[in-house]
Amino acid sequence: MKTSLGAKTIVYPTPVFVVGTYDAEGRPNVMTVAWGGICCSKPPCIAISVRKATYTYGNLMERKAFTVSVPSRDQVAEADYFGMVSGRDEDKFAATGLTPVRSELVDAPYVQEFPLALECRVLLVSNLGMHTQFVGEILDIKAEDDCLGADGELLVERIAPVIYAPGESAYYAVGERLAKGFAHGRRFGTEKRA
Amino acid sequence: MKTSLGAKTIVYPTPVFVVGTYDAEGRPNVMTVAWGGICCSKPPCIAISVRKATYTYGNLMERKAFTVSVPSRDQVAEADYFGMVSGRDEDKFAATGLTPVRSELVDAPYVQEFPLALECRVLLVSNLGMHTQFVGEILDIKAEDDCLGADGELLVERIAPVIYAPGESAYYAVGERLAKGFAHGRRFGTEKRA
Repeated sequence: MKTSLGAKTIVYPTPVFVVGTYDAEGRPNVMTVAWGGICCSKPPCIAISVRKATYTYGNLMERKAFTVSVPSRDQVAEADYFGMVSGRDEDKFAATGLTPVRSELVDAPYVQEFPLALECRVLLVSNLGMHTQFVGEILDIKAEDDCLGADGELLVERIAPVIYAPGESAYYAVGERLAKGFAHGRRFGTEKRA
Repeated sequence: MKTSLGAKTIVYPTPVFVVGTYDAEGRPNVMTVAWGGICCSKPPCIAISVRKATYTYGNLMERKAFTVSVPSRDQVAEADYFGMVSGRDEDKFAATGLTPVRSELVDAPYVQEFPLALECRVLLVSNLGMHTQFVGEILDIKAEDDCLGADGELLVERIAPVIYAPGESAYYAVGERLAKGFAHGRRFGTEKRA
């Protein structure tokens, strides 16, 4: 039996995306968002949502560019802090000791120490209500060398990304590998019944 | 050092959302998507992206409603199958033995056996290229009773949701709890420095 919980923003998993932008003076800022995800394969696009009141919102509207840095599990405290305070009030890079790297492709900085960074230019802005959604075209992905396998493939276990659970407001690790996609489901359907 | 991987749709985590719709004849269909995420808190909204060629696309355009059912880790084979074949060719509920439940709030079915279901009406449709993004207002969330704690809170460990890793096309479990949000990051910033 299922119980109704009302109209809430709870689903699993939600991501821990650290959105990097420059402000009007060119100061790097980062903000953590859990509202977002990939939204198109061609052009490759990722969506992130922020409130109008955030410092990042103004930066995004001005620069039309952002990065998404993906923290590793040992960087969850930094990521949490990035979502707790405003770049108007604090220099989040200075406070954490992390390093902003200027993207060569878009007008935005990413976090050097985080294992994965996506560089994006804003394609579409949709005001949905409390949040505004920014769709960014992914121009490049950069990964730490020690997260790449022998054939240049990304190793999830090395990245050790973090999941956010909105219901209880807690971070979780990625656990064990369960199955290969577009393969495990073959037991059902025509192939099975043929 | 970071290595450039090119313009790809790789980020972690991406979700395993099973999108439920009715076709023109009222037959229930499900399709698994990894492109999506929460996109607004008020009104509560979730975005999902599908290709125009999918059966689900036509259903969404016609019915302007969908559900998102969240599979548990022991339902990953069913979820994988739902992403492998088209509802044009196969009755995915019949093939898996899962049960479609008609939503009382929106014109779409959800999966009875999956632990969590979101009922959504389409608010916004954006053609982004290969994928079209559908933003749905979440009208209700329904959870299996055995996934709720004593105070009615959702227990992530009971839901045991699944993560998709697009780089290698594999499913992962949610691992251990790392930290409480809006708390763990207090070690940085003004509170620490005061």
